[in-house]
Amino acid sequence: MSDADRFRLADLPRVLRALALGEVASEALTESCLAAIARDGALNAWTHVDVEGARTAARASDARRAANGAIGRLDGVPIAIKDNFDIERMPTSLGLPGRGERIAIEDAAVVSRLRGAGAVLLGKTNLDEGALGTTGRNPHFGDVANPHLPGRVAGGCSAGAAAAVAAGHALAAIGSDTFGSVRIPAAFCGLVGLKPTFGEVSCRGMAPSLRRLDCPGILTRNVADATLLLQVLAGYDPGDPRTRARRVPFAPPDWEPGRLRVAVVSDLRSLGATPEVVERFQQAIAQAGSVLGQAIPMAMDVSPSEVAAGRHAALLLMEAELLASHEGRLEGISPRLAQMLDHARRRTSADYVRADRLLDDAVVQVRARFAEVDVLLLPTVPSVPPAAAAEEPVNLGDFTAIASLAGCPALSLPLGEGIGLQLVGPRGSDLRLLELGEILSAVLGAAAG
Amino acid sequence: MSDADRFRLADLPRVLRALALGEVASEALTESCLAAIARDGALNAWTHVDVEGARTAARASDARRAANGAIGRLDGVPIAIKDNFDIERMPTSLGLPGRGERIAIEDAAVVSRLRGAGAVLLGKTNLDEGALGTTGRNPHFGDVANPHLPGRVAGGCSAGAAAAVAAGHALAAIGSDTFGSVRIPAAFCGLVGLKPTFGEVSCRGMAPSLRRLDCPGILTRNVADATLLLQVLAGYDPGDPRTRARRVPFAPPDWEPGRLRVAVVSDLRSLGATPEVVERFQQAIAQAGSVLGQAIPMAMDVSPSEVAAGRHAALLLMEAELLASHEGRLEGISPRLAQMLDHARRRTSADYVRADRLLDDAVVQVRARFAEVDVLLLPTVPSVPPAAAAEEPVNLGDFTAIASLAGCPALSLPLGEGIGLQLVGPRGSDLRLLELGEILSAVLGAAAG
Repeated sequence: MSDADRFRLADLPRVLRALALGEVASEALTESCLAAIARDGALNAWTHVDVEGARTAARASDARRAANGAIGRLDGVPIAIKDNFDIERMPTSLGLPGRGERIAIEDAAVVSRLRGAGAVLLGKTNLDEGALGTTGRNPHFGDVANPHLPGRVAGGCSAGAAAAVAAGHALAAIGSDTFGSVRIPAAFCGLVGLKPTFGEVSCRGMAPSLRRLDCPGILTRNVADATLLLQVLAGYDPGDPRTRARRVPFAPPDWEPGRLRVAVVSDLRSLGATPEVVERFQQAIAQAGSVLGQAIPMAMDVSPSEVAAGRHAALLLMEAELLASHEGRLEGISPRLAQMLDHARRRTSADYVRADRLLDDAVVQVRARFAEVDVLLLPTVPSVPPAAAAEEPVNLGDFTAIASLAGCPALSLPLGEGIGLQLVGPRGSDLRLLELGEILSAVLGAAAG
Repeated sequence: MSDADRFRLADLPRVLRALALGEVASEALTESCLAAIARDGALNAWTHVDVEGARTAARASDARRAANGAIGRLDGVPIAIKDNFDIERMPTSLGLPGRGERIAIEDAAVVSRLRGAGAVLLGKTNLDEGALGTTGRNPHFGDVANPHLPGRVAGGCSAGAAAAVAAGHALAAIGSDTFGSVRIPAAFCGLVGLKPTFGEVSCRGMAPSLRRLDCPGILTRNVADATLLLQVLAGYDPGDPRTRARRVPFAPPDWEPGRLRVAVVSDLRSLGATPEVVERFQQAIAQAGSVLGQAIPMAMDVSPSEVAAGRHAALLLMEAELLASHEGRLEGISPRLAQMLDHARRRTSADYVRADRLLDDAVVQVRARFAEVDVLLLPTVPSVPPAAAAEEPVNLGDFTAIASLAGCPALSLPLGEGIGLQLVGPRGSDLRLLELGEILSAVLGAAAG
């Protein structure tokens, strides 16, 4: 294994140090990534690889370092971008057919930020058709395979982003998370997944899935990498009507571990978690021990019919968004997606409002929880990754939806076997979750080792 | 004129001092208000007067003072509430027929706040049918008359609230402002009207008109009264999914008058303002002189077709909200409203999304303005109040919509003849607008006198 191959699989802080010390060049690192991508075509992780663009950017980064020029925070680091973000002059597929009609004329906000930080953009990663799904299956670009657990689905809809990071095609990936689309594939592929507080990272240039919930998200192999990416991406953007100007910077971690109020969701079985997931989750909580202090058991007390109603409401809103974007240009879509969009076409504006209000009710319920606790712990997904050939379960997003609905930050840590440990905090507590996540990762890693 | 009658028409700080010094009792003040309400039945300002409840609250306030008990910030002050807010055990009409079916079981958040501050709630004020309108006409409770300019409409849809304050029925009123519904009647009735920053005052218990824009608002006879009310009402409410927890309190006025960047909208005529309104507005700007420093002329550069498209989009969203709330219970509504709701019934969920996205675009446009300026000045309404019998113009909300779309605070100051001077600032600049508004009122009042 060459040096470049080794660094391709290393942590970001280590890679940035190596780049700074000249232990590895961005060009060699980028070539190593491109070779891995070419080798792993069967993963269907990518919809578009920008070989020449990536090489040019890597050489430019190396030239900046050679000239002692200004160096960005991610200078020379190869990154993957989910294919629902625009990158100038590349097609945006959104997992739909006919992507050639959608050549982006401008970078999405997160892409601009990454370029500004000196990152090397490798290309665009595969996703569920129309970004509507939780398994990473795509009839136009092929189903994304899970490099972490072969034979299982990669999780969706940021499936290719997760597969690319898990397979070492990129050091990190930008996905999007509306109802769990970053955290689900992160758990399934053994990665760290972060959905930031709603409105902290701009959605400009990202195809809308459900605007009141959409968040760009981050997929990495460890917590420190996610923290680094978040700092590069977060910030007010007047071009996104939903980002918010903060009067104070992101709250620094303002808790003393002994005083943090941590709640552990206690009615996981009745919420649909499988015994296997519950067991692994409870084992992790036990291993975390004193890090969590006196963890409070907290029942979510949501009935299956309420959960189903929320699911249907959110689905209608997402279908309506997709229909509003693409009506009249939907030739060649799958019967599954056609049926979903037909459903939205038969629903009135008042039906939309009623579904939207159901989400309002859920926000209020989640907010009430955070009057009592600082962090809520639960599994990321109710079950382990389904087999690649199995039918898509309806409930894979049920545990990630909680943070999505309330605009809360959520972090998924890998527990092995495609199971994730999810940390949810109130809005703006992103850095606190990341700090706690880092400690938990260390403790759980030590216990596992 | 009795003492109580005098205080009924006085400024809030003066009234609070008189109550504290025992110069007037809340009971006498309340009786004076109730007598004025009874006398002015022809104004159609009220849908429900709670005579006994108001008397009981006033006596309780007097008893608290007599017992040297804890006194609220508005203790004993009679206030009017627009009839789209819930008050426990009173019907909420929303200006629709069949209000008896809608007896509130709980106070709206703003009502709780006022009760907590010791205010005396006189009852509920009249509004356009279904809160959809800008003139204060109502087929079920009678059209609201304008006490300030007899023969003209009072403005809508917080028409009764404005009429009640203008006629001296109440010391202040709570209205709601989705697209100008507080500021339009404030201008038409010669009052101060404040729409706070979106999300700073809870909408819990207020009938939704367009949830992403709805704001409780304040109608008073002067700026100091509005400032006092805002401090009582503002604050995070976990029960409203859109209020926001602030990490720092409302920004104190952080400007030095000489450094404030004030812009004056320069293309008023092409935006639809009448010559009469433009002249009075420019005269006021000239009178304000050095208070505004070097005011920057700023063209809004919006075409009539863009304005019309925004109007139609917002109207669809409001119709859909009303339909979602009342579908199946709309017997007896006017043909005008029935036609509006039919329109929403024929629109799909994707039509809703497209209209909603048009509002997103407008947010981005307004945000860009506030990168360059701190305060934007324009008239509150493009024309003087229409005659009571005239047809409803389509454009009365065009100048108030700007702040509504972007969630910005806006303050309307009376310039006479039903014309308002509107101050708009970026989100969170409410106190700055109020302080500037107070100075402007003094300067303009001196110029007028």
